[in-house]
Amino acid sequence: MYNFKSDYSEGAHPLILQKLIDTNFVQQQGYGEDEYSIEAMHILKNKINNPEAKIFFLSGGTQTNLTVIASLLRIHEAVISARTGHIYANETGAIEATGHRVITVETADGKLRPTHLESVLLEYSLRPHVVKPKMVYISNSTEIGSIYNKSELEALSSYCRERDLLLFMDGARLGHALTADDNDLSLEDIAQYTDVFYLGGTKNGALLGEAVIFNDSSLGEEFDYVLKQRGALLAKGRILGIQFLELLRDNLYFNLARHANVQAQKIAAAFRSKGYSFLTESSTNQIFPILTKQEIAKLLKKYDFYIWKNIDETHAAIRLITSWATPEDIVLEFVEEIKLL
Amino acid sequence: MYNFKSDYSEGAHPLILQKLIDTNFVQQQGYGEDEYSIEAMHILKNKINNPEAKIFFLSGGTQTNLTVIASLLRIHEAVISARTGHIYANETGAIEATGHRVITVETADGKLRPTHLESVLLEYSLRPHVVKPKMVYISNSTEIGSIYNKSELEALSSYCRERDLLLFMDGARLGHALTADDNDLSLEDIAQYTDVFYLGGTKNGALLGEAVIFNDSSLGEEFDYVLKQRGALLAKGRILGIQFLELLRDNLYFNLARHANVQAQKIAAAFRSKGYSFLTESSTNQIFPILTKQEIAKLLKKYDFYIWKNIDETHAAIRLITSWATPEDIVLEFVEEIKLL
Amino acid sequence: MYNFKSDYSEGAHPLILQKLIDTNFVQQQGYGEDEYSIEAMHILKNKINNPEAKIFFLSGGTQTNLTVIASLLRIHEAVISARTGHIYANETGAIEATGHRVITVETADGKLRPTHLESVLLEYSLRPHVVKPKMVYISNSTEIGSIYNKSELEALSSYCRERDLLLFMDGARLGHALTADDNDLSLEDIAQYTDVFYLGGTKNGALLGEAVIFNDSSLGEEFDYVLKQRGALLAKGRILGIQFLELLRDNLYFNLARHANVQAQKIAAAFRSKGYSFLTESSTNQIFPILTKQEIAKLLKKYDFYIWKNIDETHAAIRLITSWATPEDIVLEFVEEIKLL
Amino acid sequence: MYNFKSDYSEGAHPLILQKLIDTNFVQQQGYGEDEYSIEAMHILKNKINNPEAKIFFLSGGTQTNLTVIASLLRIHEAVISARTGHIYANETGAIEATGHRVITVETADGKLRPTHLESVLLEYSLRPHVVKPKMVYISNSTEIGSIYNKSELEALSSYCRERDLLLFMDGARLGHALTADDNDLSLEDIAQYTDVFYLGGTKNGALLGEAVIFNDSSLGEEFDYVLKQRGALLAKGRILGIQFLELLRDNLYFNLARHANVQAQKIAAAFRSKGYSFLTESSTNQIFPILTKQEIAKLLKKYDFYIWKNIDETHAAIRLITSWATPEDIVLEFVEEIKLL
Repeated sequence: MYNFKSDYSEGAHPLILQKLIDTNFVQQQGYGEDEYSIEAMHILKNKINNPEAKIFFLSGGTQTNLTVIASLLRIHEAVISARTGHIYANETGAIEATGHRVITVETADGKLRPTHLESVLLEYSLRPHVVKPKMVYISNSTEIGSIYNKSELEALSSYCRERDLLLFMDGARLGHALTADDNDLSLEDIAQYTDVFYLGGTKNGALLGEAVIFNDSSLGEEFDYVLKQRGALLAKGRILGIQFLELLRDNLYFNLARHANVQAQKIAAAFRSKGYSFLTESSTNQIFPILTKQEIAKLLKKYDFYIWKNIDETHAAIRLITSWATPEDIVLEFVEEIKLL
Repeated sequence: MYNFKSDYSEGAHPLILQKLIDTNFVQQQGYGEDEYSIEAMHILKNKINNPEAKIFFLSGGTQTNLTVIASLLRIHEAVISARTGHIYANETGAIEATGHRVITVETADGKLRPTHLESVLLEYSLRPHVVKPKMVYISNSTEIGSIYNKSELEALSSYCRERDLLLFMDGARLGHALTADDNDLSLEDIAQYTDVFYLGGTKNGALLGEAVIFNDSSLGEEFDYVLKQRGALLAKGRILGIQFLELLRDNLYFNLARHANVQAQKIAAAFRSKGYSFLTESSTNQIFPILTKQEIAKLLKKYDFYIWKNIDETHAAIRLITSWATPEDIVLEFVEEIKLL
Repeated sequence: MYNFKSDYSEGAHPLILQKLIDTNFVQQQGYGEDEYSIEAMHILKNKINNPEAKIFFLSGGTQTNLTVIASLLRIHEAVISARTGHIYANETGAIEATGHRVITVETADGKLRPTHLESVLLEYSLRPHVVKPKMVYISNSTEIGSIYNKSELEALSSYCRERDLLLFMDGARLGHALTADDNDLSLEDIAQYTDVFYLGGTKNGALLGEAVIFNDSSLGEEFDYVLKQRGALLAKGRILGIQFLELLRDNLYFNLARHANVQAQKIAAAFRSKGYSFLTESSTNQIFPILTKQEIAKLLKKYDFYIWKNIDETHAAIRLITSWATPEDIVLEFVEEIKLL
Repeated sequence: MYNFKSDYSEGAHPLILQKLIDTNFVQQQGYGEDEYSIEAMHILKNKINNPEAKIFFLSGGTQTNLTVIASLLRIHEAVISARTGHIYANETGAIEATGHRVITVETADGKLRPTHLESVLLEYSLRPHVVKPKMVYISNSTEIGSIYNKSELEALSSYCRERDLLLFMDGARLGHALTADDNDLSLEDIAQYTDVFYLGGTKNGALLGEAVIFNDSSLGEEFDYVLKQRGALLAKGRILGIQFLELLRDNLYFNLARHANVQAQKIAAAFRSKGYSFLTESSTNQIFPILTKQEIAKLLKKYDFYIWKNIDETHAAIRLITSWATPEDIVLEFVEEIKLL
């Protein structure tokens, strides 16, 4: 019984495991100063065309979000997020636990736009009785599968710079965003338009690992302290370095993400061609088709997935996620099942 | 050039890597609900003879220390530690960052005794102008290689229970403690005498991983929330589960630790037989011989290690650490070098 | 030019100032152990008919809210509040700064009901990826002038006890609530239905001061530590004790609040009799009539007050607040102005 | 029975109480924007000859220490203090509760010197495994009565600027320091040599109140938010403004402090002339004579004070504190008692 519940149901890409074996007994410095981490950072700096960037490898998304946000905000400052944003919806108050409010905004598609920020700034103007909005948190792709295009990100970035807001992009699924069919952003663009962002490994072929990039190096100058203080600095940093090295060396990272997108979009196309509608527009590896509850029950006999949201008495949206590891033949089988619904 | 700088210079035991490969494409639940984690917990509960214990797998020592301490203390409470304790000396204020003072005690050998606690309670009696000491943090083996014997741990445990103090043991190197020649404690004893402790994987054959055991399950009832909040809950929890499963199944964990101890003690014996003295008494895998600076310079030409503490103008103590991965032939070569000093 | 902007525009009731003078050179213990504080606590315990209650005097509302909430929640727990609640709307993230999320609920009238809590518990059920709702924060009177009646508070209290939620009432304006014409709650009821509440002095005749009452004394057992730690324990606690002693001795506290209510309701009646509508229903000392912008401009020439909320192009709601110190003749003059609008 | 236990046993100077009465019904803006606060700030700016300084009024010492320190440190930074410093010894972990370590230094006289800082910086050099020392906290006068002279403060200030450390002076008893016989510092000097300091009212004639001065205004630019967030912003800020206005207008503040010093020094002289020794050198209003336990018992029959520190089986040091309110005739009586010991 195959599950489409998440993009972290399997282990790691075999090349990563092979590299772990090949390097296993080479002694290395601890705490991120191993040769693999250093080389992986070098490749990333090249890819964003900025030799001065500060790069750090962490273990997971929540950890990355909380360390980046806590390191950049002063105690009276807050971060703005879509209400569907991971930091608000799925992280057990991790940001508030560092002392900062997450100001939320209702959005149709999980994406923030300057008008959202404008209304937050207006609402939070009664200084000093309210926190000071100082950072904007966005996800790309978002938690509901949508992506930012270039003009959207440019507009958001301009607005943030005008109003002295930091722009932070959660890239737990950045690979999927940048390899979507309708994407027009490059990794270098992401670095240019944001103040800090990360490239997620956990959901795209690594056992664990997120690469944080401070394009403005001054913002990351003392982030090493924060990593250690929050328990995010692995003694055997090599495990993170080796993984990103393998993922980035020959573009494996983006190839894996594209594979995931293609599989999800095959499934989406099958639903679409039979006239099903979707809860959200997604060109990435998460799709949210709306089915009858009977159809859901039928599919659940052979496949596992989350029922995402009740629509009405007879319908619900489900979430289907594919990953780098999703076999094409399973997808084709699933497509056949859809045809038979 | 071999380095004796740490016990985390290599990767993982080959059996672990093999298991990662063997299980790589088996789909699993995320967030620690994979079958490997569940089985590893089961083995651990058996080893401490407590089916009710609450067990969690984390990534590293600092992360484990801060989540355990922050989850158990109320906001006005503090933890007592030896000044050499890892939470005070090496964790970038991780405990204070969760809002709690670390009250330190000077010790000769890195070990806390009831008299130390007695004097802290006396010093912190002017309620409410001082924090309330509520937890005692000890390491076994300690940061300077020493271990607790049964009567010492029993005395400390009794005192803590009498005075309503929680006893927490940092077991980053618990394997090394329990396999030392002069150890008389079992894993079950550790569980009985402490309120919570952990078993370190990172420094004993794993890529990363620490197993926290709440013998009194009520203390760990809601620790899952804290794990997630502090960014310690890995999406692919399987990586921790698989490692502990391999380490615990056939006693590999203790065999590896014993190997490390044996190698370090061979080196110690070589120094001792030539009349060298040591900064601390250690029967585990960290030793601190005192050498002349000329001798240190000579050894540094072929081996790498930390100069730990200046003793006088002509002498310093060095720290040598061995691990599960330290080859016996390298140790024998090093012993020959010592003979030639 | 008289201002109706707040109920803290003047100093203290003259009896308080006189008592400060009369006791000025009597030496007292510091930190709340003065005889006046002790006597004031005694009176309060009698008024709620609970000699075991734990009572503390603090300086202001935000300070009281943050110390009470931070002392009672564990690190992964959250507090539920109306979106208009002071802890969410007006305290610069004070609660989040102690590490806890404020979960907000939209309400029509600033009051929480069991259905609100029910939907929060449903939304926050995906343990451990979300915080654990553990406390309910309500204000009485609310920030928009409304009050809880007995059946409402009883229902809320029952629900909280059933679902193991703590109920905390912000009583910055509790005097005004309990002396409103339509109130059917006594101070003893408040103590019975809540787990902890406070009685505000700052907005009802004191220079500063809020009295926190833990009816369940076990909840306040170690609150003294928290007071000191958060900078809320005054060296000269006498200043708080003396004020509450004067306010509580001969029911002055409730007489002052009733005076404020009566004045506000005279103004409300004047608006009502001319057919004006109100943004919120209020029987206390804050009223929110809706006027044309021309009428507002006219009134602002002689009186000061806040324009609270824009209604449409030509109308806005204003906030008028009266206090213990509002002279009746000013109110009568203002009523005449209303008649001339 | 007169008590020499503290300098906060009485109320406020009568001129302050009179001013409270005189201004009681003048309506004022809340939250520190009243005319009295503004005028008091103006006087202070003149006294330190810096019209750009940022000044805030708070309620007490612990509150001031924690808000200033928390507002200026980043999350991985720490503050250095003498072990006798109030923030370490008497504030229930208030600083750690904001997330920061207090690094302590043993001193002979409660005063920090560059050599102390030098050794802390050396000890805390293993980045990123240790916190970053960033602020130096000193008290003047110290918790044991001693004061900084100009050359000491100059040396400390230079060292801090060289090493990029912020210098913060706790001036809870700054009046007593600046009016001691052996003082050679002016208020303007204090402002020049420190980055931020405060002038304590609570222990020198006010009911409550501390005035924080950021001589470098950029450091205090957003301190208003922090005040509100930590519950330190009084709705009726007038109570703080009025007190500082009275204390500062005609130099009352310094006259009161000098009175306290003179009384304590009369007592010290009486002990000294009979050959008693002292635990610490103090020229201010706290003295610590060493007496036999029999002598202490005899004095305790007529006066109250703290037994500060046991010296040996037959001797102990006591602490005697005088204040602005200590009557000269009581001091003369006490001096007679000393003569009879």
